[in-house]
Amino acid sequence: MVRVLVLYNTPADPEAFDRYYEETHIPLAKQLPGLVSYTVSKNVTPLGGDAKPYLVAELDWESREAMQAAFASPIGAETAADVPKFASGGSSLMVFDVAEV
Amino acid sequence: MVRVLVLYNTPADPEAFDRYYEETHIPLAKQLPGLVSYTVSKNVTPLGGDAKPYLVAELDWESREAMQAAFASPIGAETAADVPKFASGGSSLMVFDVAEV
Repeated sequence: MVRVLVLYNTPADPEAFDRYYEETHIPLAKQLPGLVSYTVSKNVTPLGGDAKPYLVAELDWESREAMQAAFASPIGAETAADVPKFASGGSSLMVFDVAEV
Repeated sequence: MVRVLVLYNTPADPEAFDRYYEETHIPLAKQLPGLVSYTVSKNVTPLGGDAKPYLVAELDWESREAMQAAFASPIGAETAADVPKFASGGSSLMVFDVAEV
């Protein structure tokens, strides 16, 4: 499985962020082709280190090719272009292979 | 589901880190009581933002109570005490509730 992990920093206006994320971004990202799982995590408790995200999103695909095809699609372009509209605190994005140990 | 997300920064000696993590830390952490899932991710490709972890680990429990009980156990104490022995680059740790959207 290939996972896209997004760590959103605390936004300038958390209420506006929550509303936009819920009403606009989730419905858009859920249309990404081949998406296997999409989880959103709030109430993040940082327990050490520099990363103290406000919201964590994880999106899974079967393969790196499937994930790349999703972001190369029109919905993928729209989803990527949507992020700067609400992520006023900035965000970190990364991709990795997930293996159960 | 409650997830513990650990972002390990790039260690001083990646080969030594890999060996210790594989041979010592995984076998230890897998004994954490109530652990539902434990995934380890390497080959992390950062695509923007400040977080550029070397390795990402995700450990899931059914509830926050179950996770807290795990870390309050002798194996939990041993697992937490093991981290400084190999995480020479530092790490960020956080806990959150996971919801499929």
